[in-house]
Amino acid sequence: MGYEHLLVKADGDTVRITMNRPERRNALSEEHLRELLDAFETAGSSGATGIVLGAEGKAFSAGHDFADVASRDLRGVRELLALCTELMQTIQAVPQVVVAKVQAIATAAGCQLVATCDLAVAAESAAFALPGGKAGWFCHTPAVPVARNVGRKRLMELALTGDPIDARTAADWGLVNYAVPDAELDARTDELLARATRGSRFGKEVGKQTLYAQLDRPEADAYGIAVEVMASMSQSAGAKEGMASFLEKRSPVWPD
Amino acid sequence: MGYEHLLVKADGDTVRITMNRPERRNALSEEHLRELLDAFETAGSSGATGIVLGAEGKAFSAGHDFADVASRDLRGVRELLALCTELMQTIQAVPQVVVAKVQAIATAAGCQLVATCDLAVAAESAAFALPGGKAGWFCHTPAVPVARNVGRKRLMELALTGDPIDARTAADWGLVNYAVPDAELDARTDELLARATRGSRFGKEVGKQTLYAQLDRPEADAYGIAVEVMASMSQSAGAKEGMASFLEKRSPVWPD
Amino acid sequence: MGYEHLLVKADGDTVRITMNRPERRNALSEEHLRELLDAFETAGSSGATGIVLGAEGKAFSAGHDFADVASRDLRGVRELLALCTELMQTIQAVPQVVVAKVQAIATAAGCQLVATCDLAVAAESAAFALPGGKAGWFCHTPAVPVARNVGRKRLMELALTGDPIDARTAADWGLVNYAVPDAELDARTDELLARATRGSRFGKEVGKQTLYAQLDRPEADAYGIAVEVMASMSQSAGAKEGMASFLEKRSPVWPD
Repeated sequence: MGYEHLLVKADGDTVRITMNRPERRNALSEEHLRELLDAFETAGSSGATGIVLGAEGKAFSAGHDFADVASRDLRGVRELLALCTELMQTIQAVPQVVVAKVQAIATAAGCQLVATCDLAVAAESAAFALPGGKAGWFCHTPAVPVARNVGRKRLMELALTGDPIDARTAADWGLVNYAVPDAELDARTDELLARATRGSRFGKEVGKQTLYAQLDRPEADAYGIAVEVMASMSQSAGAKEGMASFLEKRSPVWPD
Repeated sequence: MGYEHLLVKADGDTVRITMNRPERRNALSEEHLRELLDAFETAGSSGATGIVLGAEGKAFSAGHDFADVASRDLRGVRELLALCTELMQTIQAVPQVVVAKVQAIATAAGCQLVATCDLAVAAESAAFALPGGKAGWFCHTPAVPVARNVGRKRLMELALTGDPIDARTAADWGLVNYAVPDAELDARTDELLARATRGSRFGKEVGKQTLYAQLDRPEADAYGIAVEVMASMSQSAGAKEGMASFLEKRSPVWPD
Repeated sequence: MGYEHLLVKADGDTVRITMNRPERRNALSEEHLRELLDAFETAGSSGATGIVLGAEGKAFSAGHDFADVASRDLRGVRELLALCTELMQTIQAVPQVVVAKVQAIATAAGCQLVATCDLAVAAESAAFALPGGKAGWFCHTPAVPVARNVGRKRLMELALTGDPIDARTAADWGLVNYAVPDAELDARTDELLARATRGSRFGKEVGKQTLYAQLDRPEADAYGIAVEVMASMSQSAGAKEGMASFLEKRSPVWPD
């Protein structure tokens, strides 16, 4: 698939997916969403261990493209939102560690992308907002992953006021992992991704998926999931190599 | 309904509900709870866009009034707690944005009120506690919304020790949005409310209700709720005006 | 039961359980887990009001003992993890307040112990990690309680990178209540426990159990639990004494 709105680059074990529709502030038209979904699915089935989601231009992403929404009827908007949700769920389902690299303001579904990625690093000059709160629609779906990253009063402030928070506040609230000097954004993102992609690939894949499966549930239910997965995975080649290399005091060689 | 324990004032688009039983530290007797419930229901069906819940005196609220609890049998306490819970759920169900303005110590069900309001601003001299933890009963129900604002270890410390935290700690933990100089409490509360009440009234009403509906659930369940609401609301007059005014680069005129 | 890996000491109203297998970094072999489970069950049915879980040596606990895991088949690992989970659930089920006193690094199931205890105090030189993320297995079960103490992006960083965070970061994220100077660890732990164990014993026991029952659920479900417990407990001798002593302005004498 050739992309009109994305730059996709394989860089060693990392796939770099860069939204490149700066003249539209990387607004997520249906076509843009379809390209992102395709890019994540393709990267997901590649041998890569990590994915960096970045953007070109003066916005990370402005969220849905009103030019693409305004004329849609209910059925049309429902389909668009189902596509957007499929993208978000794919980002969490792919076996790779996904890091958002946020160079500028991320609003609405753009902020949703940041909240959805496994990890996020923001330039100090970046900002984050759910602007639907001061407009006519409302950031209903963007608030879903934001609510699963920050506390309730902070979610309410973001969602009801629509006003942006800066990158340091986003790091303080837990919406991103780090706010870093703008000049260090690329390096710090790669450094975090490198730390997050060590170890057995298969172990990490199952680990990531199990984390999302056990979240937001009563603790006993979460243990019900995690115990079975952890028991099963103890028999994997990666787990066996990890334990053997530890006990034999040698470096591991991951088999998968 | 004439209120004995409350001052209620319509102030432009804002309803100001002020607990005014300072000689009893705004303890929540059954009568006080009934007045609060009536005041929120009345404000809820008014045309206001915001509600400020404040208090007069040296306490925001001391929680349940033991003089009203001590002589009750099981049936009587159950009814009182059901009434209290109905008040809390009404605060979240009304279409208005509700801000707690906390001028002094908020304990037990008084702390529960702060945790329940959509937003909260506290004077720096205010404090927050779940004192049942060092007494004989326990702050079981106040801990419900507190647990949905702060992390688990912090909830446990509040609930088990019964000791107060100051306003800056409450802001740091996410129990309130801001801790502000005492002299700025009124102005900062109004400033936050003004930011939180812009935009389409109907959009905000549905937005607030959908936020509470999607919280505390597995993410996929939350999307199931949010996608349907967001699709449906895309056809509202407010959403259409929001998108049209954005695309036409003019100021919106909210129809609802 | 005589313990090989633990020191257990009754100290007034406190039971001090100290992991004492420093030569194995307090790794949690099956035997070590069985001793901890027995010690918590024994302390749980004692008259104590508090339990301190500490450790001797250069690690708080390194988690599962690979020497005890590596040779197990699926059935064997499943049994080991069920035992470990039973320990974690027992720590939360005992009527005592349980404080982790963390003097050094807590990794994997060692970090899980800290996340599981009701409260935690860490020496400033302590550290916390879920190292499975950079190895071959994965910290699936340790991530369960960690996810219920810290925000999602921070959980992901811990779980995916496997790298340690220091005690101040752990306190900032809410994984522990306090990071204190190493020399003050014992005193500050005891001070927190003393504050957390005042009041009616029976009230606190039911309080602690109700907190864990209502967490991680939609708020209305949590109220369904908390209202019934709080109504029921209003008729307890402790609640009645608490209210009576308050109304009579005298010191309470807890009957239970």
